[in-house]
Amino acid sequence: MSIDYKKELESAAKSMILVHEPDILIKMIARMMVQKVKVIHTGILLHDEQKNTYILRVSRGSVGTRVPQEFARMDYNNPLISFFRERKDKEILGNGLIVYSEVKQLLRKRIHPQAEKILNAVLYQMDMLGAVVCIPSYFREDLLGILFLGRKVSGRDFKRRELDFFVALASDVAMAIRNATLFKQLQDELAKRQELFLNTTISLSAAIEAKDRYTQGHTTRVTNLCLEIGKRLISKRDIRLDSNFLEHLHIAALLHDIGKIGVPENILNKKGILDEEEWQKMKQHPTIGSNILHSIKELASAIEGVKHHHERYDGKGYPEGLDDDKIPIIAAIIAVADAFDAMTSDRPYRNAKSKKEAISEIKQESGKQFHPRVVSAFLQLCQEGKI
Amino acid sequence: MSIDYKKELESAAKSMILVHEPDILIKMIARMMVQKVKVIHTGILLHDEQKNTYILRVSRGSVGTRVPQEFARMDYNNPLISFFRERKDKEILGNGLIVYSEVKQLLRKRIHPQAEKILNAVLYQMDMLGAVVCIPSYFREDLLGILFLGRKVSGRDFKRRELDFFVALASDVAMAIRNATLFKQLQDELAKRQELFLNTTISLSAAIEAKDRYTQGHTTRVTNLCLEIGKRLISKRDIRLDSNFLEHLHIAALLHDIGKIGVPENILNKKGILDEEEWQKMKQHPTIGSNILHSIKELASAIEGVKHHHERYDGKGYPEGLDDDKIPIIAAIIAVADAFDAMTSDRPYRNAKSKKEAISEIKQESGKQFHPRVVSAFLQLCQEGKI
Repeated sequence: MSIDYKKELESAAKSMILVHEPDILIKMIARMMVQKVKVIHTGILLHDEQKNTYILRVSRGSVGTRVPQEFARMDYNNPLISFFRERKDKEILGNGLIVYSEVKQLLRKRIHPQAEKILNAVLYQMDMLGAVVCIPSYFREDLLGILFLGRKVSGRDFKRRELDFFVALASDVAMAIRNATLFKQLQDELAKRQELFLNTTISLSAAIEAKDRYTQGHTTRVTNLCLEIGKRLISKRDIRLDSNFLEHLHIAALLHDIGKIGVPENILNKKGILDEEEWQKMKQHPTIGSNILHSIKELASAIEGVKHHHERYDGKGYPEGLDDDKIPIIAAIIAVADAFDAMTSDRPYRNAKSKKEAISEIKQESGKQFHPRVVSAFLQLCQEGKI
Repeated sequence: MSIDYKKELESAAKSMILVHEPDILIKMIARMMVQKVKVIHTGILLHDEQKNTYILRVSRGSVGTRVPQEFARMDYNNPLISFFRERKDKEILGNGLIVYSEVKQLLRKRIHPQAEKILNAVLYQMDMLGAVVCIPSYFREDLLGILFLGRKVSGRDFKRRELDFFVALASDVAMAIRNATLFKQLQDELAKRQELFLNTTISLSAAIEAKDRYTQGHTTRVTNLCLEIGKRLISKRDIRLDSNFLEHLHIAALLHDIGKIGVPENILNKKGILDEEEWQKMKQHPTIGSNILHSIKELASAIEGVKHHHERYDGKGYPEGLDDDKIPIIAAIIAVADAFDAMTSDRPYRNAKSKKEAISEIKQESGKQFHPRVVSAFLQLCQEGKI
C-alpha cells in the first residue's frame, strides 16, 4: 500500500517553516492528521518552559473522544512524559515512538520487571488519551512535544512505513515549532521594546510639561488629537504619507514642547502677557526641542514636526517662516491640534474659548495659519462628534 | 547509481532552518556542494531587494574557476536573471533548471528564433560563470536566488535523479533563506529599537541636566563609570545579578537625576550653600525621579536605582534610610559613581578635589556611606588606571 497522503504532508511540513505563529502551526498539523491520515482523534502536547509542564495545545476529532480535563497538563513526572524525556523509548522499545498494540505484545513476553512497570504506566496514560500511537518531537535533546493519534476511522492498523514517515514528519514539525517559537519570542521582545520606548517618552515629556504650570495635560490631549487627524488623513489618501507616518507623528506630538525645558521658569510661569524679550525666548522652544533630539537619526521626521509646529501656512510663523507644503505635514498637524488645545484651555491672561468658538476660528484660519487639508480632516472629526 | 550524499544533504537542509544567519547558511550550502557533490566550483546569486539586483554572495571551488568581477552583480535585465524571473525555464525547457549540455543539444534542433536568441544569451552567461547547471530557488513567485554548479571533479555528467534532487533541495534552501532573512530583519529592527530607546533617553536626560548649570556632562560621566563598575561586579561573580542587570543599570544611571526637573531653578542654580528649606526640596529629587517613571513596569529595577541612589550603607541616607543589602545594588553603584564625579567637579561653594583625594575618600567611606563590594570593584578599576 502506498501512503497517498505522504507528498501532501511533506510539502505541508515544509511550508510550515514560514508559519511563524505556533498556535496556527499546531492546529494545522492536527487538522492534517484528521483529514489526511483519517484518524478518529488526535492531539498535541507541547512543552511549556515557563511552567515546566506539557500542555495539551490542541485536541481534534469526533465527539466522545475528548481528552479528560485532568490530562490537559502533564508535569515531568507523568509516566508518558518521563518515558520520552528520559529516552526510554530508545532504551526499551528501540524506536522513537510508542505503538500501543506493539507494547501490549511485548508485555506478553517476559521482560524486566522495571520495564514492565514503566510500560504499563505508559499504556494507562495512552488509554486516558485514547491514543494508539504516540510520536515524540525532539529538538536536539529536548522533548518539544508529543503528537498522539487515535485509531484510524477505517479500523485498520498503521503500517510500519506510515509510522516511519510520522517519525520523520515529527522532526520537521519540531523544527518548525522551534522556529516559530523563536520568531514569536523575538516579536514579543520587539513589541515590548516599542512599548517601553513610548512609555518612557511619555513619562519624560510629562515631567518636562509639568514645569509649565499652565499646560497640565496639554501634551496628552494634543497627542490624541494629532493621532485622530493623522488616521483621518491616511484614510483620505490625498496626501502621500510614508509607512511609519503615524509612529513619527506620535513621537513628534509627545515631544513637541520638549524645548520648553530650555525656557526659564519665570517666563514659562509668568502671570500676564510676555514682554518682547521674554517672547523671543519663548519662541525658541521649537528650535531648542529639535536641537535636543537632533543626534537621533531614526527620529528625523519627528524632529521636523517638533521644529516646525509653530510655522504658519501663509509663511508668517517661526522659526523659519516656511509656507505651504514646505511645512512638514507632521508639523502642520501638530499646529492645528496645539492651537485647538491652547484656545480651549485657560491661560493666566485670558479665559478658555468654547469648543465651538475654537473650531470656527480654526476653520477661518484654513489656508492662513493652518494647512487646509489638515483643517479639513479636523473639521470632519468635529462633525462626527469625535472632538 | 544511488546518490550517496542525498541523506546527508537532506538532513543538512532541514537543520538549516534553525540557522538564522543568511550568510552562514549560504556558505554552508556552497561548502556542501563542493564537498559532497564534488563539483570543481559552485556559487550562489541572491536577490538584493533594496538594490534590485542579484549578488554573487558566495563562490567556492578550485583556483582558476573564480567568477569574473563584473558578474558579481546582475540586474534584472541580465539574460540569466530574466530567464528565471520570467519563468522562461518552464516555458522553453519545461523544468525548473538549466543544464548546459541539454540546452546545447536543443539548439542543434530547429527551434523558435526568439527562444534560440534567449538560450544563446543564457549559455553565454553560464560560460562566464563556469556553470554547467543552474538551479533557481523560488519563494512563491519570487526568484530568491540561483545556485550554479561547475562540472564534477570526476568529469562525469550529472544524472537526472541528481538534478531532480537538486531542484527539491533548492526549494528547501529557498525556504530556509527566506526564513533567515525574516529573522534577520526582525533582529535588526530590535537592535534599532534598542538604540532608539537609549538615544532618546540620553537626549532627554541631557536636556534635563542642562537645567542645572553646575553639572554639565555629569550624567555621561556617571553612566560610564557605573557601567565599568557593573561589568567588574559581573566578572567577580560575588553578587547575584539578573540577566538584564547591565541594561537596567545603564538606564538608571542615565536617569538618576531626572527628578531634578521637579526642583525649582533658583535652587538648582544657587551660588552658595543651600538653606535647610532649599536642601529639603533638593533632597526630593530621587523620589520625584522615581515618581516620573513609576508607571513603566519594564523599568522597575532601573526605577529602584533612581529612587535609592542617595541611600547610605549605614542607613543614614535618603529618601528611605535603607541600609546594607536592602539598598538595591544598582542604587549602590550609582551612589559611588555619583559621589566620585561630584567630588572631582567644581561646585559654586567649593573647588574640585583631585582624583587621588576623591578615591581615598571613597575608600574611607566603604561600609559607611558606600557598599563595600561596590567600593572594592571601584578601587580595582582605579588600580588598573581605568578611572
